[in-house]
Amino acid sequence: MAPKSVETAPELPAGDPKHAARATRSAGRQMRSRLLDGASRLFKERGLAGTSISDIAAAADAFPSQITYYFRTKEALFVEAACRDVLYVARAAEQAALQASTPGEYTRALVETVTTTDSVAFFTEALTLTRRRPDLAPLVERTIERLHGEGMRAYVGQIERHGWKSLRDPDASSRRFWALAIGVTVEGHAMGRSADDMCAEMLRVLGDQATTRTSGDTARLRLVGDSNTSKSNSSDGEAS
Amino acid sequence: MAPKSVETAPELPAGDPKHAARATRSAGRQMRSRLLDGASRLFKERGLAGTSISDIAAAADAFPSQITYYFRTKEALFVEAACRDVLYVARAAEQAALQASTPGEYTRALVETVTTTDSVAFFTEALTLTRRRPDLAPLVERTIERLHGEGMRAYVGQIERHGWKSLRDPDASSRRFWALAIGVTVEGHAMGRSADDMCAEMLRVLGDQATTRTSGDTARLRLVGDSNTSKSNSSDGEAS
Repeated sequence: MAPKSVETAPELPAGDPKHAARATRSAGRQMRSRLLDGASRLFKERGLAGTSISDIAAAADAFPSQITYYFRTKEALFVEAACRDVLYVARAAEQAALQASTPGEYTRALVETVTTTDSVAFFTEALTLTRRRPDLAPLVERTIERLHGEGMRAYVGQIERHGWKSLRDPDASSRRFWALAIGVTVEGHAMGRSADDMCAEMLRVLGDQATTRTSGDTARLRLVGDSNTSKSNSSDGEAS
Repeated sequence: MAPKSVETAPELPAGDPKHAARATRSAGRQMRSRLLDGASRLFKERGLAGTSISDIAAAADAFPSQITYYFRTKEALFVEAACRDVLYVARAAEQAALQASTPGEYTRALVETVTTTDSVAFFTEALTLTRRRPDLAPLVERTIERLHGEGMRAYVGQIERHGWKSLRDPDASSRRFWALAIGVTVEGHAMGRSADDMCAEMLRVLGDQATTRTSGDTARLRLVGDSNTSKSNSSDGEAS
Protein backbone atom coordinates (compact mmCIF):
# COMPACT_ATOMS: atom_id res chain seq x y z
CA MET A 1 0.00 0.00 0.00
CA ALA A 2 1.39 3.38 -1.01
CA PRO A 3 0.87 5.44 2.11
CA LYS A 4 0.73 8.83 0.39
CA SER A 5 -0.95 7.93 -2.89
CA VAL A 6 -3.44 10.61 -3.86
CA GLU A 7 -5.70 8.20 -5.69
CA THR A 8 -6.19 5.94 -2.75
CA ALA A 9 -9.71 6.11 -1.39
CA PRO A 10 -10.03 6.44 2.41
CA GLU A 11 -7.77 3.62 3.48
CA LEU A 12 -9.76 0.47 3.90
CA PRO A 13 -8.21 -2.74 5.11
CA ALA A 14 -8.49 -5.14 2.20
CA GLY A 15 -10.41 -8.34 2.53
CA ASP A 16 -12.81 -7.30 5.27
CA PRO A 17 -16.05 -6.09 3.66
CA LYS A 18 -17.71 -5.56 7.04
CA HIS A 19 -14.94 -3.30 8.15
CA ALA A 20 -15.11 -1.44 4.81
CA ALA A 21 -18.82 -0.86 5.12
CA ARG A 22 -18.28 0.34 8.65
CA ALA A 23 -15.62 2.80 7.51
CA THR A 24 -17.94 4.16 4.83
CA ARG A 25 -20.75 4.51 7.29
CA SER A 26 -18.45 6.29 9.66
CA ALA A 27 -17.31 8.74 6.94
CA GLY A 28 -20.96 9.37 6.16
CA ARG A 29 -21.71 10.00 9.80
CA GLN A 30 -18.84 12.43 10.03
CA MET A 31 -20.05 14.39 7.02
CA ARG A 32 -23.59 14.44 8.38
CA SER A 33 -22.37 15.68 11.70
CA ARG A 34 -20.19 18.39 10.07
CA LEU A 35 -23.18 19.59 8.06
CA LEU A 36 -25.31 19.71 11.19
CA ASP A 37 -22.61 21.69 13.03
CA GLY A 38 -22.38 24.28 10.27
CA ALA A 39 -26.15 24.46 9.89
CA SER A 40 -26.72 24.97 13.63
CA ARG A 41 -24.29 27.83 13.76
CA LEU A 42 -25.72 29.61 10.71
CA PHE A 43 -29.39 29.00 11.52
CA LYS A 44 -28.95 30.33 15.06
CA GLU A 45 -27.21 33.40 13.71
CA ARG A 46 -29.46 34.19 10.76
CA GLY A 47 -32.67 32.15 11.05
CA LEU A 48 -34.20 29.80 8.49
CA ALA A 49 -35.02 32.41 5.87
CA GLY A 50 -31.61 34.10 6.20
CA THR A 51 -29.60 30.94 5.54
CA SER A 52 -29.24 29.16 2.21
CA ILE A 53 -28.19 25.61 1.44
CA SER A 54 -25.07 26.91 -0.28
CA ASP A 55 -24.12 28.98 2.81
CA ILE A 56 -24.27 25.81 4.87
CA ALA A 57 -22.36 23.79 2.32
CA ALA A 58 -19.63 26.45 2.28
CA ALA A 59 -19.48 26.54 6.09
CA ALA A 60 -19.12 22.76 6.24
CA ASP A 61 -16.67 22.58 3.31
CA ALA A 62 -19.12 20.41 1.40
CA PHE A 63 -21.23 20.46 -1.77
CA PRO A 64 -24.87 21.60 -1.73
CA SER A 65 -25.76 18.21 -3.23
CA GLN A 66 -24.44 16.55 -0.08
CA ILE A 67 -26.97 18.46 1.97
CA THR A 68 -29.86 17.34 -0.20
CA TYR A 69 -28.43 13.80 -0.18
CA TYR A 70 -28.34 13.60 3.61
CA PHE A 71 -31.29 15.82 4.58
CA ARG A 72 -33.41 16.35 1.44
CA THR A 73 -34.59 19.91 2.29
CA LYS A 74 -33.33 22.94 4.16
CA GLU A 75 -36.34 22.70 6.48
CA ALA A 76 -35.59 19.09 7.37
CA LEU A 77 -31.97 20.05 8.09
CA PHE A 78 -33.20 22.96 10.23
CA VAL A 79 -35.41 20.70 12.33
CA GLU A 80 -32.76 18.01 12.72
CA ALA A 81 -30.09 20.55 13.69
CA ALA A 82 -32.41 22.19 16.23
CA CYS A 83 -33.41 18.85 17.77
CA ARG A 84 -29.79 17.77 18.11
CA ASP A 85 -28.90 21.14 19.60
CA VAL A 86 -31.56 21.13 22.30
CA LEU A 87 -30.61 17.59 23.33
CA TYR A 88 -26.98 18.73 23.71
CA VAL A 89 -28.10 21.59 25.91
CA ALA A 90 -30.26 19.29 27.99
CA ARG A 91 -27.24 17.10 28.58
CA ALA A 92 -25.06 20.10 29.40
CA ALA A 93 -27.68 21.26 31.91
CA GLU A 94 -27.68 17.88 33.62
CA GLN A 95 -23.88 17.92 33.74
CA ALA A 96 -23.84 21.39 35.28
CA ALA A 97 -26.47 20.36 37.82
CA LEU A 98 -24.40 17.38 39.01
CA GLN A 99 -22.31 19.75 41.13
CA ALA A 100 -25.29 21.12 43.02
CA SER A 101 -25.49 20.37 46.70
CA THR A 102 -28.95 21.87 47.39
CA PRO A 103 -32.23 21.74 45.44
CA GLY A 104 -31.94 25.50 44.86
CA GLU A 105 -28.47 25.17 43.33
CA TYR A 106 -29.68 22.28 41.23
CA THR A 107 -32.56 24.25 39.73
CA ARG A 108 -30.37 27.29 39.19
CA ALA A 109 -27.72 25.27 37.34
CA LEU A 110 -30.35 23.79 35.00
CA VAL A 111 -32.02 27.13 34.34
CA GLU A 112 -28.76 29.00 33.80
CA THR A 113 -27.58 26.45 31.27
CA VAL A 114 -30.75 26.50 29.17
CA THR A 115 -31.23 30.28 29.25
CA THR A 116 -27.66 31.22 28.29
CA THR A 117 -27.71 29.48 24.91
CA ASP A 118 -29.70 30.09 21.75
CA SER A 119 -30.64 26.44 21.57
CA VAL A 120 -34.10 26.63 23.11
CA ALA A 121 -35.03 29.51 20.80
CA PHE A 122 -33.68 27.52 17.85
CA PHE A 123 -35.70 24.47 18.89
CA THR A 124 -38.81 26.60 19.34
CA GLU A 125 -38.43 27.91 15.81
CA ALA A 126 -38.30 24.28 14.67
CA LEU A 127 -41.47 23.52 16.65
CA THR A 128 -43.25 26.47 15.05
CA LEU A 129 -42.11 25.36 11.60
CA THR A 130 -43.33 21.83 12.23
CA ARG A 131 -46.84 23.03 12.90
CA ARG A 132 -47.28 23.66 9.18
CA ARG A 133 -44.96 20.85 8.07
CA PRO A 134 -46.39 17.70 9.65
CA ASP A 135 -43.92 15.61 7.61
CA LEU A 136 -41.21 16.93 9.94
CA ALA A 137 -43.16 16.22 13.13
CA PRO A 138 -41.92 12.72 14.03
CA LEU A 139 -38.36 13.86 14.84
CA VAL A 140 -39.69 16.74 16.91
CA GLU A 141 -42.00 14.40 18.80
CA ARG A 142 -39.19 12.01 19.61
CA THR A 143 -37.05 14.93 20.75
CA ILE A 144 -39.70 16.27 23.10
CA GLU A 145 -40.23 12.81 24.50
CA ARG A 146 -36.49 12.44 25.07
CA LEU A 147 -36.28 15.85 26.75
CA HIS A 148 -39.08 14.93 29.11
CA GLY A 149 -37.91 11.35 29.70
CA GLU A 150 -34.20 12.07 30.14
CA GLY A 151 -34.96 15.16 32.20
CA MET A 152 -37.12 13.12 34.51
CA ARG A 153 -34.55 10.33 34.89
CA ALA A 154 -31.77 12.80 35.66
CA TYR A 155 -33.97 14.54 38.20
CA VAL A 156 -34.99 11.31 39.91
CA GLY A 157 -31.32 10.31 40.01
CA GLN A 158 -30.39 13.56 41.73
CA ILE A 159 -33.14 13.59 44.31
CA GLU A 160 -32.35 9.97 45.21
CA ARG A 161 -28.64 10.61 45.45
CA HIS A 162 -29.12 13.57 47.78
CA GLY A 163 -32.19 12.30 49.62
CA TRP A 164 -34.22 15.32 48.49
CA LYS A 165 -37.98 15.35 48.38
CA SER A 166 -39.63 16.19 45.06
CA LEU A 167 -42.48 18.67 45.42
CA ARG A 168 -44.44 16.95 42.69
CA ASP A 169 -44.53 14.00 40.33
CA PRO A 170 -41.04 14.03 38.70
CA ASP A 171 -42.51 13.56 35.23
CA ALA A 172 -44.70 16.68 35.66
CA SER A 173 -41.65 18.47 37.04
CA SER A 174 -39.63 17.73 33.92
CA ARG A 175 -42.50 18.63 31.60
CA ARG A 176 -43.06 21.88 33.43
CA PHE A 177 -39.36 22.70 33.18
CA TRP A 178 -39.30 22.34 29.39
CA ALA A 179 -42.64 24.02 28.71
CA LEU A 180 -41.47 26.99 30.78
CA ALA A 181 -38.05 27.04 29.12
CA ILE A 182 -39.86 27.36 25.79
CA GLY A 183 -42.41 29.91 27.00
CA VAL A 184 -39.89 32.13 28.79
CA THR A 185 -37.48 31.99 25.84
CA VAL A 186 -40.13 32.89 23.26
CA GLU A 187 -41.34 35.81 25.37
CA GLY A 188 -37.80 36.88 26.26
CA HIS A 189 -36.48 36.91 22.70
CA ALA A 190 -39.49 38.83 21.43
CA MET A 191 -38.93 41.39 24.18
CA GLY A 192 -35.18 41.58 23.62
CA ARG A 193 -34.44 40.37 27.17
CA SER A 194 -30.87 39.51 28.11
CA ALA A 195 -29.89 35.96 29.06
CA ASP A 196 -29.63 37.08 32.71
CA ASP A 197 -33.17 38.45 32.66
CA MET A 198 -34.51 35.26 31.11
CA CYS A 199 -32.70 33.22 33.74
CA ALA A 200 -34.22 35.32 36.55
CA GLU A 201 -37.68 35.13 34.97
CA MET A 202 -37.51 31.38 34.54
CA LEU A 203 -36.33 30.83 38.12
CA ARG A 204 -39.17 33.01 39.31
CA VAL A 205 -41.97 31.27 37.42
CA LEU A 206 -40.59 27.75 37.82
CA GLY A 207 -40.64 27.88 41.60
CA ASP A 208 -39.04 25.22 43.75
CA GLN A 209 -38.73 21.70 42.41
CA ALA A 210 -37.58 19.84 45.50
CA THR A 211 -36.76 20.34 49.16
CA THR A 212 -34.22 18.82 51.44
CA ARG A 213 -35.67 16.41 53.95
CA THR A 214 -35.15 17.70 57.43
CA SER A 215 -35.06 14.86 59.91
CA GLY A 216 -37.95 14.66 62.33
CA ASP A 217 -39.62 17.45 60.41
CA THR A 218 -41.59 15.48 57.92
CA ALA A 219 -44.98 16.51 59.23
CA ARG A 220 -44.25 20.17 58.78
CA LEU A 221 -43.01 19.46 55.28
CA ARG A 222 -46.23 17.91 54.18
CA LEU A 223 -47.62 19.74 51.23
CA VAL A 224 -51.10 20.88 50.56
CA GLY A 225 -51.74 20.40 46.86
CA ASP A 226 -48.58 20.46 44.83
CA SER A 227 -47.62 23.96 45.80
CA ASN A 228 -44.34 25.25 47.00
CA THR A 229 -45.87 25.71 50.41
CA SER A 230 -42.96 24.17 52.18
CA LYS A 231 -40.71 27.17 52.47
CA SER A 232 -40.28 26.41 56.13
CA ASN A 233 -37.56 23.94 55.33
CA SER A 234 -34.33 25.71 55.08
CA SER A 235 -32.01 25.36 52.23
CA ASP A 236 -33.89 25.85 49.01
CA GLY A 237 -35.31 29.20 49.91
CA GLU A 238 -33.03 30.98 47.52
CA ALA A 239 -34.40 29.37 44.39
CA SER A 240 -35.78 32.29 42.41
CA MET B 1 -76.96 66.73 -2.58
CA ALA B 2 -77.54 63.93 -5.07
CA PRO B 3 -77.74 60.90 -2.87
CA LYS B 4 -76.23 58.50 -5.38
CA SER B 5 -73.59 60.77 -6.90
CA VAL B 6 -70.38 58.86 -7.30
CA GLU B 7 -68.28 61.93 -6.58
CA THR B 8 -69.82 62.62 -3.18
CA ALA B 9 -67.51 61.98 -0.29
CA PRO B 10 -68.91 59.96 2.69
CA GLU B 11 -71.90 62.01 3.90
CA LEU B 12 -70.90 64.30 6.75
CA PRO B 13 -73.40 66.35 8.76
CA ALA B 14 -72.94 69.94 7.62
CA GLY B 15 -71.94 72.66 10.06
CA ASP B 16 -70.42 70.57 12.82
CA PRO B 17 -66.74 70.02 12.14
CA LYS B 18 -66.17 68.19 15.46
CA HIS B 19 -68.94 65.76 14.69
CA ALA B 20 -67.55 65.31 11.19
CA ALA B 21 -64.07 64.56 12.48
CA ARG B 22 -65.54 62.12 14.99
CA ALA B 23 -67.51 60.37 12.27
CA THR B 24 -64.40 60.04 10.13
CA ARG B 25 -62.36 58.70 13.01
CA SER B 26 -65.05 56.22 13.84
CA ALA B 27 -65.28 55.06 10.21
CA GLY B 28 -61.50 54.63 10.25
CA ARG B 29 -61.68 52.59 13.44
CA GLN B 30 -64.37 50.40 11.96
CA MET B 31 -62.32 49.71 8.84
CA ARG B 32 -59.22 48.97 10.94
CA SER B 33 -61.18 46.58 13.06
CA ARG B 34 -62.73 44.86 10.03
CA LEU B 35 -59.27 44.41 8.52
CA LEU B 36 -57.99 42.96 11.79
CA ASP B 37 -60.93 40.55 11.95
CA GLY B 38 -60.34 39.29 8.42
CA ALA B 39 -56.59 39.08 8.96
CA SER B 40 -56.92 37.10 12.21
CA ARG B 41 -59.16 34.54 10.59
CA LEU B 42 -56.94 34.03 7.56
CA PHE B 43 -53.62 34.10 9.42
CA LYS B 44 -54.84 31.50 11.92
CA GLU B 45 -56.03 29.31 9.09
CA ARG B 46 -53.09 29.63 6.71
CA GLY B 47 -50.17 31.23 8.56
CA LEU B 48 -48.19 34.31 7.59
CA ALA B 49 -46.61 32.91 4.44
CA GLY B 50 -49.90 31.40 3.23
CA THR B 51 -51.84 34.67 3.40
CA SER B 52 -51.46 37.63 1.05
CA ILE B 53 -52.47 41.25 1.51
CA SER B 54 -54.99 40.88 -1.28
CA ASP B 55 -56.57 37.80 0.40
CA ILE B 56 -57.09 39.88 3.52
CA ALA B 57 -58.44 42.85 1.58
CA ALA B 58 -60.92 40.56 -0.18
CA ALA B 59 -62.01 38.99 3.12
CA ALA B 60 -62.62 42.43 4.64
CA ASP B 61 -64.26 43.85 1.52
CA ALA B 62 -61.52 46.49 1.28
CA PHE B 63 -58.70 47.56 -1.01
CA PRO B 64 -55.11 46.34 -0.52
CA SER B 65 -54.06 49.98 -0.29
CA GLN B 66 -56.21 50.35 2.82
CA ILE B 67 -54.15 47.65 4.51
CA THR B 68 -50.90 49.40 3.75
CA TYR B 69 -52.47 52.70 4.81
CA TYR B 70 -53.52 51.39 8.22
CA PHE B 71 -50.78 48.84 8.93
CA ARG B 72 -47.92 49.48 6.48
CA THR B 73 -46.80 45.83 6.12
CA LYS B 74 -48.32 42.37 6.26
CA GLU B 75 -45.98 41.52 9.15
CA ALA B 76 -47.13 44.52 11.19
CA LEU B 77 -50.74 43.53 10.57
CA PHE B 78 -49.92 39.96 11.58
CA VAL B 79 -48.42 41.09 14.88
CA GLU B 80 -51.23 43.52 15.65
CA ALA B 81 -53.92 40.95 14.85
CA ALA B 82 -52.21 38.33 17.00
CA CYS B 83 -51.79 40.72 19.95
CA ARG B 84 -55.44 41.76 19.80
CA ASP B 85 -56.50 38.14 19.55
CA VAL B 86 -54.58 36.93 22.59
CA LEU B 87 -55.96 39.81 24.68
CA TYR B 88 -59.50 38.81 23.67
CA VAL B 89 -58.81 35.25 24.75
CA ALA B 90 -57.36 36.43 28.05
CA ARG B 91 -60.55 38.36 28.69
CA ALA B 92 -62.70 35.39 27.67
CA ALA B 93 -60.72 33.20 30.07
CA GLU B 94 -61.33 35.63 32.93
CA GLN B 95 -65.04 35.73 32.08
CA ALA B 96 -65.27 31.95 32.05
CA ALA B 97 -63.40 31.76 35.36
CA LEU B 98 -65.87 34.10 37.07
CA GLN B 99 -68.29 31.18 37.47
CA ALA B 100 -65.80 29.04 39.34
CA SER B 101 -66.54 28.25 42.96
CA THR B 102 -63.31 26.44 43.84
CA PRO B 103 -59.65 27.15 42.99
CA GLY B 104 -59.55 23.97 40.91
CA GLU B 105 -62.56 25.04 38.82
CA TYR B 106 -61.04 28.47 38.42
CA THR B 107 -57.79 27.12 37.02
CA ARG B 108 -59.61 24.65 34.78
CA ALA B 109 -61.82 27.38 33.29
CA LEU B 110 -58.77 29.53 32.47
CA VAL B 111 -56.82 26.64 30.99
CA GLU B 112 -59.75 25.31 28.95
CA THR B 113 -60.38 28.70 27.43
CA VAL B 114 -56.80 29.33 26.33
CA THR B 115 -56.16 25.81 25.03
CA THR B 116 -59.32 25.51 22.93
CA THR B 117 -58.54 28.45 20.64
CA ASP B 118 -55.79 29.03 18.10
CA SER B 119 -55.02 32.40 19.62
CA VAL B 120 -52.04 31.43 21.76
CA ALA B 121 -50.42 29.67 18.81
CA PHE B 122 -51.10 32.72 16.66
CA PHE B 123 -49.57 35.01 19.28
CA THR B 124 -46.55 32.71 19.60
CA GLU B 125 -45.99 32.94 15.86
CA ALA B 126 -46.03 36.72 16.26
CA LEU B 127 -43.47 36.46 19.08
CA THR B 128 -41.21 34.31 16.94
CA LEU B 129 -41.52 36.75 14.05
CA THR B 130 -40.69 39.68 16.30
CA ARG B 131 -37.40 38.13 17.29
CA ARG B 132 -36.00 39.03 13.88
CA ARG B 133 -38.12 42.16 13.43
CA PRO B 134 -37.29 44.36 16.42
CA ASP B 135 -39.31 47.20 14.85
CA LEU B 136 -42.43 45.19 15.71
CA ALA B 137 -41.35 44.49 19.29
CA PRO B 138 -42.98 47.40 21.17
CA LEU B 139 -46.55 46.20 20.57
CA VAL B 140 -45.62 42.67 21.57
CA GLU B 141 -43.97 43.96 24.75
CA ARG B 142 -47.02 45.96 25.72
CA THR B 143 -49.22 42.94 25.05
CA ILE B 144 -47.15 40.64 27.24
CA GLU B 145 -47.17 43.25 30.00
CA ARG B 146 -50.95 43.54 29.72
CA LEU B 147 -51.39 39.76 29.79
CA HIS B 148 -49.30 39.53 32.96
CA GLY B 149 -50.79 42.62 34.61
CA GLU B 150 -54.44 42.01 33.81
CA GLY B 151 -54.07 38.31 34.58
CA MET B 152 -52.65 39.16 37.97
CA ARG B 153 -55.37 41.70 38.80
CA ALA B 154 -58.14 39.30 37.78
CA TYR B 155 -56.55 36.56 39.87
CA VAL B 156 -56.17 38.78 42.91
CA GLY B 157 -59.80 39.85 42.50
CA GLN B 158 -60.96 36.23 42.47
CA ILE B 159 -58.97 35.04 45.42
CA GLU B 160 -60.16 38.02 47.47
CA ARG B 161 -63.76 37.53 46.46
CA HIS B 162 -63.73 33.87 47.48
CA GLY B 163 -61.31 34.18 50.36
CA TRP B 164 -58.89 31.75 48.71
CA LYS B 165 -55.23 31.65 49.50
CA SER B 166 -52.73 32.07 46.68
CA LEU B 167 -49.96 29.50 46.75
CA ARG B 168 -47.47 32.06 45.50
CA ASP B 169 -46.93 35.68 44.59
CA PRO B 170 -49.89 36.46 42.24
CA ASP B 171 -47.60 38.19 39.75
CA ALA B 172 -45.44 35.05 39.45
CA SER B 173 -48.64 33.02 39.20
CA SER B 174 -49.84 35.04 36.21
CA ARG B 175 -46.43 34.98 34.52
CA ARG B 176 -46.19 31.24 35.00
CA PHE B 177 -49.65 30.79 33.53
CA TRP B 178 -48.78 32.63 30.31
CA ALA B 179 -45.31 31.18 29.88
CA LEU B 180 -46.80 27.70 30.25
CA ALA B 181 -49.68 28.49 27.90
CA ILE B 182 -47.09 29.41 25.27
CA GLY B 183 -44.79 26.46 25.97
CA VAL B 184 -47.56 23.85 26.05
CA THR B 185 -49.17 25.27 22.90
CA VAL B 186 -45.92 25.32 20.92
CA GLU B 187 -45.13 21.75 21.93
CA GLY B 188 -48.71 20.62 21.41
CA HIS B 189 -49.11 22.05 17.93
CA ALA B 190 -45.78 20.65 16.80
CA MET B 191 -46.86 17.23 18.07
CA GLY B 192 -50.34 17.46 16.57
CA ARG B 193 -52.00 17.21 20.00
CA SER B 194 -55.74 17.82 20.31
CA ALA B 195 -57.10 20.76 22.31
CA ASP B 196 -58.19 18.29 25.02
CA ASP B 197 -54.70 16.88 25.30
CA MET B 198 -53.18 20.34 25.53
CA CYS B 199 -55.68 21.26 28.21
CA ALA B 200 -54.80 18.15 30.23
CA GLU B 201 -51.07 18.77 29.76
CA MET B 202 -51.32 22.38 30.84
CA LEU B 203 -53.38 21.52 33.92
CA ARG B 204 -50.82 18.91 34.80
CA VAL B 205 -47.74 21.12 34.55
CA LEU B 206 -49.35 24.25 35.95
CA GLY B 207 -50.27 22.66 39.26
CA ASP B 208 -52.50 24.32 41.82
CA GLN B 209 -52.63 28.10 41.95
CA ALA B 210 -54.61 28.62 45.13
CA THR B 211 -56.28 26.73 47.95
CA THR B 212 -59.43 27.33 49.93
CA ARG B 213 -58.80 28.46 53.48
CA THR B 214 -59.87 25.79 55.89
CA SER B 215 -61.03 27.33 59.14
CA GLY B 216 -58.79 26.65 62.10
CA ASP B 217 -56.25 25.32 59.69
CA THR B 218 -54.57 28.55 58.78
CA ALA B 219 -51.24 27.70 60.35
CA ARG B 220 -50.77 24.68 58.15
CA LEU B 221 -51.62 26.66 55.05
CA ARG B 222 -49.54 29.67 55.91
CA LEU B 223 -47.08 30.56 53.23
CA VAL B 224 -43.68 31.95 53.75
CA GLY B 225 -42.63 34.18 50.89
CA ASP B 226 -44.21 37.13 49.24
CA SER B 227 -47.61 35.75 48.51
CA ASN B 228 -49.57 38.32 50.47
CA THR B 229 -48.41 41.43 48.67
CA SER B 230 -51.41 42.88 46.92
CA LYS B 231 -54.03 41.88 49.45
CA SER B 232 -54.77 45.35 50.70
CA ASN B 233 -55.96 47.02 47.53
CA SER B 234 -59.33 45.56 46.86
CA SER B 235 -61.20 47.41 44.21
CA ASP B 236 -59.08 46.87 41.10
CA GLY B 237 -59.81 43.17 40.90
CA GLU B 238 -61.96 43.42 37.83
CA ALA B 239 -59.85 46.00 36.02
CA SER B 240 -59.15 44.66 32.54
